[in-house]
Amino acid sequence: MNNTEELNTPQLSGNFKKELLQEAADRFNTPLYVYDLDRIQKRFNELKQAFSGRKALVCYALKANSNLSVIKKLASLESGADCVSLGEIKRAIMAGIPKYKIIYSGVGKQDCEIKEAIKLGILFINVEGKEEMLRIEACSKELGIPARVSIRVNPDIDPQTHPYISTGLKENKFGVSIEEAKGMYLYAHNAKFLEPIGIHFHIGSQITKLKPIAESAQKIAQLTRSLLALKIGIKFFDIGGGIGIAYSKENTIDLYDYAQAILEELRGLDVTIVCEPGRFIVGNSGVFLTKVLYQKENQGKHFVIVDGAMNDLIRPSLYEAYHQILSLKNPNAESASYQVDIVGPICESGDYLGKNISLPLLEQGDILAILSAGAYGFSMASNYNTRPRCAEVAIEGGEMRLVRKRECFEDLIALEKEYL
Amino acid sequence: MNNTEELNTPQLSGNFKKELLQEAADRFNTPLYVYDLDRIQKRFNELKQAFSGRKALVCYALKANSNLSVIKKLASLESGADCVSLGEIKRAIMAGIPKYKIIYSGVGKQDCEIKEAIKLGILFINVEGKEEMLRIEACSKELGIPARVSIRVNPDIDPQTHPYISTGLKENKFGVSIEEAKGMYLYAHNAKFLEPIGIHFHIGSQITKLKPIAESAQKIAQLTRSLLALKIGIKFFDIGGGIGIAYSKENTIDLYDYAQAILEELRGLDVTIVCEPGRFIVGNSGVFLTKVLYQKENQGKHFVIVDGAMNDLIRPSLYEAYHQILSLKNPNAESASYQVDIVGPICESGDYLGKNISLPLLEQGDILAILSAGAYGFSMASNYNTRPRCAEVAIEGGEMRLVRKRECFEDLIALEKEYL
Repeated sequence: MNNTEELNTPQLSGNFKKELLQEAADRFNTPLYVYDLDRIQKRFNELKQAFSGRKALVCYALKANSNLSVIKKLASLESGADCVSLGEIKRAIMAGIPKYKIIYSGVGKQDCEIKEAIKLGILFINVEGKEEMLRIEACSKELGIPARVSIRVNPDIDPQTHPYISTGLKENKFGVSIEEAKGMYLYAHNAKFLEPIGIHFHIGSQITKLKPIAESAQKIAQLTRSLLALKIGIKFFDIGGGIGIAYSKENTIDLYDYAQAILEELRGLDVTIVCEPGRFIVGNSGVFLTKVLYQKENQGKHFVIVDGAMNDLIRPSLYEAYHQILSLKNPNAESASYQVDIVGPICESGDYLGKNISLPLLEQGDILAILSAGAYGFSMASNYNTRPRCAEVAIEGGEMRLVRKRECFEDLIALEKEYL
Repeated sequence: MNNTEELNTPQLSGNFKKELLQEAADRFNTPLYVYDLDRIQKRFNELKQAFSGRKALVCYALKANSNLSVIKKLASLESGADCVSLGEIKRAIMAGIPKYKIIYSGVGKQDCEIKEAIKLGILFINVEGKEEMLRIEACSKELGIPARVSIRVNPDIDPQTHPYISTGLKENKFGVSIEEAKGMYLYAHNAKFLEPIGIHFHIGSQITKLKPIAESAQKIAQLTRSLLALKIGIKFFDIGGGIGIAYSKENTIDLYDYAQAILEELRGLDVTIVCEPGRFIVGNSGVFLTKVLYQKENQGKHFVIVDGAMNDLIRPSLYEAYHQILSLKNPNAESASYQVDIVGPICESGDYLGKNISLPLLEQGDILAILSAGAYGFSMASNYNTRPRCAEVAIEGGEMRLVRKRECFEDLIALEKEYL
């Protein structure tokens, strides 16, 4: 197995050794998120490497995992940031990402957020529609600072992923059609307070096939050429994110092929490539640890009730997502002897972490590792059932440390008790 | 339309007048949850009334909406509490619900939670399985305080609701079979530190048909009779919650019929009826207000982008739940002239609040009211996309007040910034 394959697969390797994970559970209690910062570094470098020799900027998509220490690690590797809210921009800056490497994306930007982004002098704003561009222009005028923008073009291509995370079809809320984009670029080109310096597409998340990305790149590169012919100075070609990871043994996109496919379409274009990986970098760099509380059999069906729940990790419930689950005591697949549903304490049948998972015999107190939980795990966590959100731990060079404290009851009622 | 029907339907009535809601949006900003405490009171009393003449205890299920001021209002009406975590027990006590009216349910109770519940002297613990009962016994022994328990029996009846919130089928993680329950009751009866005083069933949430509930009550009443014959002193007959509300125009269970069906099955049994309504009380007593940010058309499809998102209200995304949506400026259905998708600012196609909703022409800044949002709204909210959770407002006798402050960026990073 080569290095890339190892990094891309959900498995207990690198800092995710069973002894270290057990130690994390013992020291910091469960449920718990654990991140391997060394693996994050390797994944980031892999992607950077793929585009080496070209002007390229990797902007980590914070929405996948916005823990400040994770962002700080990426900042130290010279990553930029793809942010979708003012909150994320603040996180990026706080963690040390330079403002000129920050991109602001998202369909629902508010005036106060737009103004703050312009004042901060971030790299550019990804514009999702005409109405929004006019708002950005109005904000810029008011501030007297021109806004650098990039327009998100919807190539109308099916990314062949879960409908909830597919974003590049015409029936999606994202971006504008190629026709509309042309008009918007011309408008921006002639507007005193808009600087159209980039072009952007992003067709979805967890994409495992190269063809939809290559086709999108082709369409958008063609548009770029026609814009450049009109003297519209496109400098950044933002290919979005969405590179899928392996949650099980599925085939994923080869990074070399990915880069080559993009570069092929960009031949002759003098643009900086921007990419926005989130899950690709952190997905398999995180595990969620949870403890076995009870086991029960309901008429032939085995349930393992654990202390982690859908409020901690909602992906199985929300997207019917599969996560590999191992027992730390006995992580080898060979020892798996019976099929169980791993369920949480929340009062819904939808509260499960895995269905029909093969595991060895378990005992109360055993720790289960839910793999590939680094992306869209903690960032989507809630306090449903008045459950405090769990702690987050980072391991780097075999050393572990807390990167977010576990919530306590007082944290949960802090904003409402004074009104009682 | 009679009073019950009015209360049960999503509509702008009572304290939900369009002027008041607009004022709430103006004063407290959006997105915003608004609760009508008077409607909560009416709903609570309606249910209490249905069981009048019988010993009955209504235990409000906090998981639906656990805002302290909502609980306090119910405490003032002499409600008990159905709690599914130690956090919820603490909320109930803090809001003024007497300990002897608190029930502790849920499949994943931890030792520390069980001990605390026993020490507090709550009414009883709903036991979900044999293993858990042994843990409760061990905790009681350790404390030297007998634990009052009730066993959750799974009647294996299809509640005909969304699979995620159906809980009374044998393939669910909840409760034990009737056969297993018998054995557990005998064990508990002979155990020095267990007092089996109740019996419990709960087949699901948002149930709109009476038959499954009546059938369950029949099965469980039969079991109760056989337990009483064995001198096992069942005093509480806990019929759970799950009474559905109207999100649109669907038929729901008539309260009188509901009570009669239960009472019919309980004929001759000297037990206190316990019921655990959550959504029934708060569902149509809450609205979620959100502001129109942008409108766009993508090749024939109209999108209205609002400032509220799936992190605020996840029901549409998670359960494909329908919520009625009105424009405050023009709430009459007659003025609805075009079909739109109401979507939020989050970077997922799954981030929507409504699909194919008929609305009048809208303008930026218009406020939309998402009805029937009082249950499983704020209680499931997250910080996804680093979005601060919104504020909550209560209206009572036409007067509005804040009951939870809007989160700010500092709140979001409070538990992680020290590790940066």
